[in-house]
Amino acid sequence: MENTFEKRSISYESAIKMINAAHEKAKEIGVTITVAIVDESGVQKAFGRMDNAPLISVKASLKKALTAIGFGISSGQEWFNFIKEDPIMREGVHDFDDFILLGGGSPIFIEGKLVGAIGISGGHYKQDEECVKTALNIL
Amino acid sequence: MENTFEKRSISYESAIKMINAAHEKAKEIGVTITVAIVDESGVQKAFGRMDNAPLISVKASLKKALTAIGFGISSGQEWFNFIKEDPIMREGVHDFDDFILLGGGSPIFIEGKLVGAIGISGGHYKQDEECVKTALNIL
Amino acid sequence: MENTFEKRSISYESAIKMINAAHEKAKEIGVTITVAIVDESGVQKAFGRMDNAPLISVKASLKKALTAIGFGISSGQEWFNFIKEDPIMREGVHDFDDFILLGGGSPIFIEGKLVGAIGISGGHYKQDEECVKTALNIL
Amino acid sequence: MENTFEKRSISYESAIKMINAAHEKAKEIGVTITVAIVDESGVQKAFGRMDNAPLISVKASLKKALTAIGFGISSGQEWFNFIKEDPIMREGVHDFDDFILLGGGSPIFIEGKLVGAIGISGGHYKQDEECVKTALNIL
Repeated sequence: MENTFEKRSISYESAIKMINAAHEKAKEIGVTITVAIVDESGVQKAFGRMDNAPLISVKASLKKALTAIGFGISSGQEWFNFIKEDPIMREGVHDFDDFILLGGGSPIFIEGKLVGAIGISGGHYKQDEECVKTALNIL
Repeated sequence: MENTFEKRSISYESAIKMINAAHEKAKEIGVTITVAIVDESGVQKAFGRMDNAPLISVKASLKKALTAIGFGISSGQEWFNFIKEDPIMREGVHDFDDFILLGGGSPIFIEGKLVGAIGISGGHYKQDEECVKTALNIL
Repeated sequence: MENTFEKRSISYESAIKMINAAHEKAKEIGVTITVAIVDESGVQKAFGRMDNAPLISVKASLKKALTAIGFGISSGQEWFNFIKEDPIMREGVHDFDDFILLGGGSPIFIEGKLVGAIGISGGHYKQDEECVKTALNIL
Repeated sequence: MENTFEKRSISYESAIKMINAAHEKAKEIGVTITVAIVDESGVQKAFGRMDNAPLISVKASLKKALTAIGFGISSGQEWFNFIKEDPIMREGVHDFDDFILLGGGSPIFIEGKLVGAIGISGGHYKQDEECVKTALNIL
C-alpha cells in the first residue's frame, strides 16, 4: 500500500515571474490587468493588480484561474469545445462553483504535471489570453 | 518609485442629489424606484428606495451599479454590444460576480475619470434608464 | 458643490516591493509567510504566499489586511487597546465582518493618507509583525 | 378570519431626514459616519456614507440596523443587558446572522409600532450612539 502520493506545485518564484511577464505584455498592448495564480489545489499563490486595472478584473482573474485548475483545461475555447454540442452541459456548466466561461484562464503544466493555474482579466478576453500566453512562455 | 496614485471618488453630496433627481423623474413618469450609488471602488455610497418600490429593485439596483463600475460601461446596451457577436462571451458574461445584463446601470464619469456608478431598478428598464439619464444630467 | 474628492491608493510597484521585503525578512528569521496587500478601499492589490507557508496564512493574511484598512489601525495591539476596557466592545468586535484581532495587520500611511493595508501570517504573530515592520520601512 | 394584518413602515422621506440629521451631528462632533436605515422587514431603505467615513462603517452600519430590527432592541446596551447574566446567551448571541453586539443600532418606533431601524458606524460607538439619538429626535 502506498500511503501517500506526490504533488508538484508551482513555486512562488515562478508565479511572480509569470505575473511580471503578463504585466509587461499588458503595458505593451495598452491594457491594465489583474493576474491571479493558484496552486495545484486551487489555493491562491500570487496576485497582482496593475494600477487602474478595471474593478471587474479583481474577482474575474481569480475565477478564471479556478476554472482552469478545476479540470485542467483553459477557461475559454477549451471549455467551450468540451460543452458546445451537448445541450445539457451547455447550460449546466454555469452551475459549477468558481466557474467562468471566458478566455483568460489557463492551467499551468510543468513536465506534464498540472502544478497550478493562471487567470488574467482587464482587457478584452483576447488581450487577456495574449498576456496568459506570454506568462506561460517564461516557464 | 511612485508610492501612490490618485483616484477621484463621487462625493456624498453629488450622490444624494442624483438620487433626488432620479426619484423626481420616477414620480413624473409614474414608477417607484430604488437608486443605488457606488464609489469608484464599488463600495456602496448612497441608496434610496422610494415607498412601495418593487422588492426586486433593492438588490437589482445595487447589482446594476456594480456591473457598471466593473468595466466602466453601462449594464444594458453597452455591455450587450460588447458581447453580442461572440458566442462564448454571450454565455460567459453571466458568470461574472455582481453582474446583470439589463439597462439601468451606468458609470459616472466626471472630468474624464470614473468616479462611481449608479444603478436604478423599479420600472421597465427603459424607464429606469430615463431616470439614470436625469440623474447624470444634474452633475 | 464638490462633485468628487481625492483618494490616494498604494501603487502596485510599492506593494510588490513590500511583499519582497517581508519575504526576505521571513527567510532571515526562519518562517514561511503569506503577505496580502489591499488598497485604500479594501480591494486586493497584491498577494504572495511563500512555498510551504501554512495554509491558515492564506486567509488570515487577507483578513488582517482588511481589519487594518477598516478603521486605519493595526489588527493587534492598537485594536486591543481600543476595546480592552469596555466589556461590550470586547465581545462585539468579533462580530465585525472581515475582522481578526491578531497582530500582523497594519494600515499603510503615505504622506498622512491611508493608502492601503498589509496583512502577514505564517509565523507567531510577533514574527508576522516583524515582517510587517520591515515591509513598511521600505516606503 | 382575518386574511391580512397591517404593517407600518418608515417612509423614505423620514429615512433621508434621519440620515441628514445624523450627518449634521457627526460633523458637529468631528467624525465621519455611515448611516443605514432598514424597514420593518429588514430590507434596506436608505443609506448614506459621508466622504472619508472609515471602510468598516459600510458593513457595520447595516449590521447594526439589522441587529436592532431583529428583536426591536438596540444593538448595544439593550442587547447586552438582555444577555449578560446568562452564560449560554452570552456566547450564543454571536451566532445570530446579521448580528453585532455594539452600540449604534436602534429600532425606530412610531406611534408604538416598530417601523424600521437605524445603524450608524464611523466613530467610537458612543459617538455613533449620539448620532443615532439626534436622528431619532427629528421624528
